[in-house]
Amino acid sequence: MNRVLINGIASDYVPVTDRGLHYGDGVFETIACVGTHPVFIDQHLNRMQSGARKLDISFPARQLILDDINCLLRGNNRHSVIKLILTRGSGKRGYRYETKQIPMRICMQSEWPDTVAHWNEHGINTRFCETQLSLNPQLSGIKSLNRLENVLASRELGAEFNEGFLSDIDGNVIEGTMSNIFAVVNDVLVTPDLSRCGIMGIMREHIIDIAHENNIRIEIRNIKRDELLQSQAIFVSNSVIGLCVVKQLEQHSFNTDTMTKMINTALQKRIETDAKAAA
Amino acid sequence: MNRVLINGIASDYVPVTDRGLHYGDGVFETIACVGTHPVFIDQHLNRMQSGARKLDISFPARQLILDDINCLLRGNNRHSVIKLILTRGSGKRGYRYETKQIPMRICMQSEWPDTVAHWNEHGINTRFCETQLSLNPQLSGIKSLNRLENVLASRELGAEFNEGFLSDIDGNVIEGTMSNIFAVVNDVLVTPDLSRCGIMGIMREHIIDIAHENNIRIEIRNIKRDELLQSQAIFVSNSVIGLCVVKQLEQHSFNTDTMTKMINTALQKRIETDAKAAA
Repeated sequence: MNRVLINGIASDYVPVTDRGLHYGDGVFETIACVGTHPVFIDQHLNRMQSGARKLDISFPARQLILDDINCLLRGNNRHSVIKLILTRGSGKRGYRYETKQIPMRICMQSEWPDTVAHWNEHGINTRFCETQLSLNPQLSGIKSLNRLENVLASRELGAEFNEGFLSDIDGNVIEGTMSNIFAVVNDVLVTPDLSRCGIMGIMREHIIDIAHENNIRIEIRNIKRDELLQSQAIFVSNSVIGLCVVKQLEQHSFNTDTMTKMINTALQKRIETDAKAAA
Repeated sequence: MNRVLINGIASDYVPVTDRGLHYGDGVFETIACVGTHPVFIDQHLNRMQSGARKLDISFPARQLILDDINCLLRGNNRHSVIKLILTRGSGKRGYRYETKQIPMRICMQSEWPDTVAHWNEHGINTRFCETQLSLNPQLSGIKSLNRLENVLASRELGAEFNEGFLSDIDGNVIEGTMSNIFAVVNDVLVTPDLSRCGIMGIMREHIIDIAHENNIRIEIRNIKRDELLQSQAIFVSNSVIGLCVVKQLEQHSFNTDTMTKMINTALQKRIETDAKAAA
């Protein structure tokens, strides 16, 4: 069951004229919440604000969004997920928008997914998706509501696979349907270059930062399917699952290596520290 | 003012959980209506059904959609615009969808735009947009709700320009923000190849058909900005404006040529015939 605030008011409905519905004209964030604490909230709001700026959508006062989140999390003592959506709001027919559009903000709380604990403990089963990511440097990195590629890729997973890896039209593996990808190749941590497509996850940023902090060599570059299959270890990351080890990619099995374990420990510590700092 | 039916029931609101809003997970059509008659309705529904099939969204019985349209157009004696939207419906958080999702259909009537008569009489002022179209053969041709590129391009028009032309990342001019493009080059009718991106308009299909019928040589191929600027005449088409002559593209002025006039006459005749056949 979802609990939803729309522009700060409890509601389950949005105007049919909203441009988020008509054009995907908006941005979103998915935030892990521990009790009453939204994890890495500043970074989520920074990314959302940056995306809104690129789309020329006016960003509400941060306190309004924080108030929405706090309202939904009040008294909460479990894990949950908050999804924030900011659209350009309602408008007349046609792609053009008014200079003074009033955006619509949605704050939606969902239950913590059952699968996360199992995935974190046992690792995940993955495949390569046939669905390709568009090349569009302008939209790259914007966590917009135009997400049909992710939808099409996710239908390739079926019951058997937990996650699938998408490539761009040049054959570079870019990201999972809902996660960023890391591989350990010759003791170097490699993660795909996302300058032409893909979304830079908040967890991805932390993992890159942890690597720097711990003198782990890291390369942000193109990586093809073959190289990924031959790597020593693979893991994925997103805000809800944190870091999750890939135990199987297509026909190849992988074990958890020491580098991945070390990074995961450091990441969990950062998540705890973030929650404590807010408390 | 809009009049709206959602799943056949008058309403101005949609569920906040709808996947059309969250992911642009749906398709749409914009239909010109003459009095009680939706022009070229069969072709619009064919394209919508084809798009829905590619996205694996179950398509409602056509009669349901026709009933919606007829209900909104009842007693109407003016021109108006019907926008149809079909989304995958509501779902849980996450890109994955259930195999038995119940789609949501929206039928929305808007007033006929004031600008159309003026544009048809005087032609339009156009520019090249810097916004690029993504290359994605899988999504090409699907009139989906992922339309951020059109939104970004439309903001380049300002008050001065009526329409803007988008190129793909290889520099081929593909389409207008809301229209298809035709050029007369050495007495040959040329229209961009849309196999890698862009949407094949219903009017575009009719114009191609009219060219074949009248032994006008037509080429569907790549066209660059320079060639477009040097062409004898340019026009654009969509379901609401029909055929509209480009009088200005960047610094270049164009006159209406005889081929364009002939095609426009034939197109108007087809639109009238379609309305009469239904009456």
